[in-house]
Amino acid sequence: MLICKVLKPLVSTNRIADFQHKHLQVVLDGSTQKVAVDAVGAIPGDWVICVGSSAAREAAGSKSYPSDLTIVGIIDHWDPEAAKEMAAGNPAANPAATPAKPPGGAG
Amino acid sequence: MLICKVLKPLVSTNRIADFQHKHLQVVLDGSTQKVAVDAVGAIPGDWVICVGSSAAREAAGSKSYPSDLTIVGIIDHWDPEAAKEMAAGNPAANPAATPAKPPGGAG
Amino acid sequence: MLICKVLKPLVSTNRIADFQHKHLQVVLDGSTQKVAVDAVGAIPGDWVICVGSSAAREAAGSKSYPSDLTIVGIIDHWDPEAAKEMAAGNPAANPAATPAKPPGGAG
Amino acid sequence: MLICKVLKPLVSTNRIADFQHKHLQVVLDGSTQKVAVDAVGAIPGDWVICVGSSAAREAAGSKSYPSDLTIVGIIDHWDPEAAKEMAAGNPAANPAATPAKPPGGAG
Amino acid sequence: MLICKVLKPLVSTNRIADFQHKHLQVVLDGSTQKVAVDAVGAIPGDWVICVGSSAAREAAGSKSYPSDLTIVGIIDHWDPEAAKEMAAGNPAANPAATPAKPPGGAG
Repeated sequence: MLICKVLKPLVSTNRIADFQHKHLQVVLDGSTQKVAVDAVGAIPGDWVICVGSSAAREAAGSKSYPSDLTIVGIIDHWDPEAAKEMAAGNPAANPAATPAKPPGGAG
Repeated sequence: MLICKVLKPLVSTNRIADFQHKHLQVVLDGSTQKVAVDAVGAIPGDWVICVGSSAAREAAGSKSYPSDLTIVGIIDHWDPEAAKEMAAGNPAANPAATPAKPPGGAG
Repeated sequence: MLICKVLKPLVSTNRIADFQHKHLQVVLDGSTQKVAVDAVGAIPGDWVICVGSSAAREAAGSKSYPSDLTIVGIIDHWDPEAAKEMAAGNPAANPAATPAKPPGGAG
Repeated sequence: MLICKVLKPLVSTNRIADFQHKHLQVVLDGSTQKVAVDAVGAIPGDWVICVGSSAAREAAGSKSYPSDLTIVGIIDHWDPEAAKEMAAGNPAANPAATPAKPPGGAG
Repeated sequence: MLICKVLKPLVSTNRIADFQHKHLQVVLDGSTQKVAVDAVGAIPGDWVICVGSSAAREAAGSKSYPSDLTIVGIIDHWDPEAAKEMAAGNPAANPAATPAKPPGGAG
């Protein structure tokens, strides 16, 4: 799933009938703007989890819903700056990380 | 879903039989040209919503239609310059954005 | 769908049984070489439409065919240089483009 | 499947009902952070195998689970530096590699 | 399908049960390392065809196998340097290419 930021609702008067009963949001995926069907009631500024692929259809409510990107959750706390630090491998940004662990220890 | 600009219709005389009954449009996704099946009657210059993945099949009319990109809606108003400003994090370009919101407030 | 150029057939003697009865072509998608199942009889030098995702299976002939990229049409006329001009927003390269249109005008 | 590093669990109080019974992890795919459903019990610092596309649904436990990225295995030993060397074509980093082999020799 | 180079087998002791009966290989897709299920018996150094999307499941043996990347064939002869020349549009690297062909000539 992608971590996206909600930018604003999208208005499309002329669209296919299967699309009409859900809100569409413009979301920011990295530096690319995409359109997602909103299944949780997000508002601009929210950091959200977006699911793609065929899972986006059922996440939008039914197997025949024509979505390839659906907002499935609002992230409680997301700090994009700390996230960048963690992505760059700065351990101070991720105190919970344990670099070494023997395999097979998970249930 | 992707936000694309319609460039022009595409003519392909030699194509598979399942493809024949729909219009194909060349669309611009960022700086990449792709081909989309048109389900709404878009014209060159329109900014449109394109759905991909398996959802593109049903959006094109039937579950067995061989599309992986279908135009599902025409965007009423789209300003690509303002969109770039919003993507870059300029708040003036997005007066509706609310940077902070407590979790759980959506329905 | 992707706009690709056919480069050459691909020979793979050791391959899964489900794959044997179709021709494989090396195609160029931008600067990346991929392998596509050929459903239309393209030859090297052709500009073709390639469908991906789950639609590539049925486009190749049956729902159980293991393709994720299938050539579904040969483009009648494709000028890659003019295409680049259009992608860069040069209106002279696309005389049919109409920058402004009221929404709701499509059937 | 992707080779990702687990960064930390993700908390999302407001999410769709189908999502509630599985742990979500923030994983690093190259330099991009994504969210994956955890099917093996990984912990931060683990290098894991993530499956995407429609296979992510069944890997998460059922065909109707709305995941497009699922952690399906923990890699026993992964050295990202040696991996970079191998990707760059340094043979010393991959003593098992055999550059030339006649076709058809596999079972 | 992707053209990848097999780097080495991947060992993952702690993985989901549906995964256990097939070999996993680390493959190089351009400069990115991915994990593929091996359906043909490839060895390190082989250039192979990898199928993704939902087709990877059936290519791995059954519709419920949780793969999104499966090795489906070993390429008989692959010269990565010549491939780069062809991708760059050097005609000398591809004597079979015919730049111009009337449409409709394929069966």
